[in-house]
Amino acid sequence: MNIQHKPGSLVPETVTTGPLPGSRKVYAAPKSHPDVLVPFREIALEDKEMPTLRVYDPSGPYTETDARIDLAKGLPRIRDPWIAKRTGIETYDGRIIQPVDNGNVGHDKLVPPCPANFRPRRARDGAMVTQYEFARAGIITEEMVYVAHRENLAREEAVAGAAATIADGESFGAEIPAFVTPEFVRSEIARGRAIIPSNINHPEVEPMAIGRNFLVKINANIGNSAVTSSVAEEVEKLVWSIRWGADTVMDLSTGRNIHNIRDWIIRNSPVPIGTVPIYQALEKVGGDPLKLDWEVFKDTLIEQAEQGVDYFTIHAGVRLKYVPLTAKRVTGIVSRGGSIMARWCLAGHRESFLYERFDEICDIMRKYDVSFSLGDGLRPGSGADANDAAQFGELETLGELTKVAWDKGCQVMIEGPGHVPMHKIKVNMTKQLKECGEAPFYTLGPLTTDIAPGYDHITSGIGAAMIGWFGTAMLCYVTPKEHLGLPDRDDVKTGVITYRIAAHAADLAKGHPAAHIRDDAMSKARFEFRWEDQFNIGLDPDTAREFHDATLPKDAHKTAHFCSMCGPKFCSMKITQDLRTEVLAMGENERMALEGMAEMSKKFLDMGGKVYVDVDKATPAGE
Amino acid sequence: MNIQHKPGSLVPETVTTGPLPGSRKVYAAPKSHPDVLVPFREIALEDKEMPTLRVYDPSGPYTETDARIDLAKGLPRIRDPWIAKRTGIETYDGRIIQPVDNGNVGHDKLVPPCPANFRPRRARDGAMVTQYEFARAGIITEEMVYVAHRENLAREEAVAGAAATIADGESFGAEIPAFVTPEFVRSEIARGRAIIPSNINHPEVEPMAIGRNFLVKINANIGNSAVTSSVAEEVEKLVWSIRWGADTVMDLSTGRNIHNIRDWIIRNSPVPIGTVPIYQALEKVGGDPLKLDWEVFKDTLIEQAEQGVDYFTIHAGVRLKYVPLTAKRVTGIVSRGGSIMARWCLAGHRESFLYERFDEICDIMRKYDVSFSLGDGLRPGSGADANDAAQFGELETLGELTKVAWDKGCQVMIEGPGHVPMHKIKVNMTKQLKECGEAPFYTLGPLTTDIAPGYDHITSGIGAAMIGWFGTAMLCYVTPKEHLGLPDRDDVKTGVITYRIAAHAADLAKGHPAAHIRDDAMSKARFEFRWEDQFNIGLDPDTAREFHDATLPKDAHKTAHFCSMCGPKFCSMKITQDLRTEVLAMGENERMALEGMAEMSKKFLDMGGKVYVDVDKATPAGE
Repeated sequence: MNIQHKPGSLVPETVTTGPLPGSRKVYAAPKSHPDVLVPFREIALEDKEMPTLRVYDPSGPYTETDARIDLAKGLPRIRDPWIAKRTGIETYDGRIIQPVDNGNVGHDKLVPPCPANFRPRRARDGAMVTQYEFARAGIITEEMVYVAHRENLAREEAVAGAAATIADGESFGAEIPAFVTPEFVRSEIARGRAIIPSNINHPEVEPMAIGRNFLVKINANIGNSAVTSSVAEEVEKLVWSIRWGADTVMDLSTGRNIHNIRDWIIRNSPVPIGTVPIYQALEKVGGDPLKLDWEVFKDTLIEQAEQGVDYFTIHAGVRLKYVPLTAKRVTGIVSRGGSIMARWCLAGHRESFLYERFDEICDIMRKYDVSFSLGDGLRPGSGADANDAAQFGELETLGELTKVAWDKGCQVMIEGPGHVPMHKIKVNMTKQLKECGEAPFYTLGPLTTDIAPGYDHITSGIGAAMIGWFGTAMLCYVTPKEHLGLPDRDDVKTGVITYRIAAHAADLAKGHPAAHIRDDAMSKARFEFRWEDQFNIGLDPDTAREFHDATLPKDAHKTAHFCSMCGPKFCSMKITQDLRTEVLAMGENERMALEGMAEMSKKFLDMGGKVYVDVDKATPAGE
Repeated sequence: MNIQHKPGSLVPETVTTGPLPGSRKVYAAPKSHPDVLVPFREIALEDKEMPTLRVYDPSGPYTETDARIDLAKGLPRIRDPWIAKRTGIETYDGRIIQPVDNGNVGHDKLVPPCPANFRPRRARDGAMVTQYEFARAGIITEEMVYVAHRENLAREEAVAGAAATIADGESFGAEIPAFVTPEFVRSEIARGRAIIPSNINHPEVEPMAIGRNFLVKINANIGNSAVTSSVAEEVEKLVWSIRWGADTVMDLSTGRNIHNIRDWIIRNSPVPIGTVPIYQALEKVGGDPLKLDWEVFKDTLIEQAEQGVDYFTIHAGVRLKYVPLTAKRVTGIVSRGGSIMARWCLAGHRESFLYERFDEICDIMRKYDVSFSLGDGLRPGSGADANDAAQFGELETLGELTKVAWDKGCQVMIEGPGHVPMHKIKVNMTKQLKECGEAPFYTLGPLTTDIAPGYDHITSGIGAAMIGWFGTAMLCYVTPKEHLGLPDRDDVKTGVITYRIAAHAADLAKGHPAAHIRDDAMSKARFEFRWEDQFNIGLDPDTAREFHDATLPKDAHKTAHFCSMCGPKFCSMKITQDLRTEVLAMGENERMALEGMAEMSKKFLDMGGKVYVDVDKATPAGE
């Protein structure tokens, strides 16, 4: 990795750039749309049959080989030409930024706005603007073409090369196609089963789909530091998350400079950015939930929509009637947004303004194509509270609101728990699909047990893999610091990698036709003792290499036909090679006799050379 | 933790002793058997309603408050008086130790034998000796009484205090009782559904049960270092594993000094020790599989049985006829024992001597009550090879051998994979139960994807939690170094904690009546901001505290009613307290009105004080 310093630019640039080891960024277009360039990561292999492995890549231009990043200029606005063609969109003078937008920070500590800002866009009255509206009208957007090509990764080869394994999965009703066409993407969006979070004021985004008939996605959360030493430090949190595989990033910052830092983040983000607008609204009223009202909330929605936030968490399901249902819970209400709204409702014995003004919220979000992430403010904060009346009551309301949002032309996904023991996970998915008309589900974990603080990436990674398999479209990561403190750089990476594992395990189990290609490439590399390939095919080449070197540091060991688990003396590879020699030296009669004994005629000739390598010996189960 | 140095003893003693933070060791006896003292760990809590939490504890005397460990003396022989009463057992002059037993190590490098050795015991001809034989005869042994009390932990309180949640689980046919009686343990063993690995030559063992109607157990593997600097260093690997929760330990050492080091390990192990005798047998014939024969294998079985090994992995299912089935695999045969036996079979076109001599193996193992761990030598080494004909063919043979071993009076468990994507896990369990007559299943992971070297504790922890839920009785851990190198101390700890998570998540999901007590204690501590309790209730208090201190290091923060995730200003706790004040100040009419609105009469009065604490805010899903 390189850390860039460009002293000449407006702010210090110190974000991580450069490709992962053994990889390079490629851009490829579908034949039908040579202008739609989709990024992939290509891993070089020593395998002569498969010299490169192409994988999905949300990391943006930062991982180009010779990445030239200027945070003040922002990323390339790849969607500008697409959006420019859409006649229903106008630019206008945006809302004027107020001191309160940046937490009334003193002038000396004010982070400057990002120079890459542009005049905001919005839909003209009555004109189509959202991906949902286009999809419903039968129109295939460039974003849909882009997503199809991106998701279609390697499927052609998979279908051609390994037909037997394609249907090998249990999809629980998901309908994953052999090939993804732009029309398929359109139809999924039109049915509300997928979204492409892509605010028209975020033209830098590399479009991606969230839906259960697409690859399972993951989200990483970031937040500002108490003392911001530089804009680059804040942008780096984004860059670091996507480098390891985050598909979207939520900016949960509060306090000072949040408006301007959000500008910098969005202008430099190739992935969709999500926020929770109620956080900033609460700041604007001095932190007192009782002072919240529709006007300040509406103002915040417009402020953030103009900046280009791609999806908003809106806790409109926390209705007054559900609040008493949380009284006997072991852990009450653990969602920050949920507790704010519960306080607001109960204080005046009044219905949530988010619920009552939901139509108006839709009208605003539609104008910019900000997607809904309907928040689960009453999610359980412990296994003991999982699947209770408060949680499921709210989910039913979210289902009701989903239909309203669709009627208004908006894209919608639904947030889910949280803390759920394994046997209670499946019903969450089933109920969500039923109540919310198959709108994409977006869950936090869930954590399958509460007894391991410091390891909640693992307690939740188990639940995430399972709920992803059952149909959840996006998994919100949990870091090792969950419940204990703020995640540092290592924690973020561990959280992202853990959730990439969960998402990929889910894709495999759902029967995604191409998901196994990367696994098979790894297994083949293991079998052939190609150590460099094993490192580079993996999710984290740096750590894999470091672990290998801890036992066998020499370069020669990178090509050695043994590994540290058994060592050269006890290596099954040696046994294998002896065996191979013996098989090849056999006479025809001998071979036939063995075949007869095994009642496995014709099988034996296939054995030459590739059997009995012991590649899996570090910690065998009772070997 | 304390590191003890006792310069006066035969060898330096440097194993880890002392309790985990906030904990102390207690010994408790069931009312019916005041002489059967069972160890538990008791965690002190600030919670006035539940001042201590008692948890299962496999860590042995090492975690006593004032542990006095003398490796040369070995642990207390708690089973001696029980075994002494069994008239079918005799002592005899054991096999004479040969130089080859210790890998022909030079005299100057020979590790001395453990002074705590004693004359070996064995069954008299025809006399009952195994737990299985006693169980079949209707006899309840002290080991069964011990196990019942150990497993019964907290069930009385659980059943009394939280009746509603007891049956809340999906057991997939497991029959977990509300209370565990010694008779229940006996009947499970008699049916072959559980084992108590407890060689009569390992009287130091604290008896534990492996079976799907008991708590899910985990195994950790250890192996000798290339250069052994001290016996204590080798014993420490055992002590460290059980400190964090390993229920059994497999010693996979090879090479020099293995006999004598095994002595030290067994004499100082409170948990059952497993081995793979074919490893040592192969050493005795110079590492050439073709020189293996029944005599050297038999000699090794007796050698290790006399030492007190509690279970042997025997790869008797690797039959000649299955070998060709592995030819087209992506990763061939990845079990070391499996590849050794495949080589042996194929070289002479002959059936495995382990299979052909299985009766004799049973006769030897029965004499000492060494349990079988029937090895899965043909387990898949990649997701691509999962559930194939070779794997399932071998499993069918293991089922056949299970019945033979039972007929011979032996205790039996069955080893399982390995590498299995999520959708293919369940059938492994179902088939194992069917083929092997519900004998306990003991699996490695399984790894649910192959793309994350460096994180295979996580890829496999997902599979382990699931297969544990489905009915696997013991989970063999995988460390982060799997496929890459030898695990160090930190890796072992990470592997053990990850597998404790998997096992506990499985217990919760199966509906174990008391498993949730620890989760609930943690959740309550979170809700009440009892930080010390949160650290100490968790599986790894040290790491939890360290993570918390990384953000909020001051002692005052240990009692602060906020945490680093939201900080004092934005804390939902403040919101909660405001809310509480408001609720308490309400008039009766107001309250009634709200109750009416919510149609939740009588609920509201319960709300006083314990709602709306935001304890779960580090990385919320779109909060």
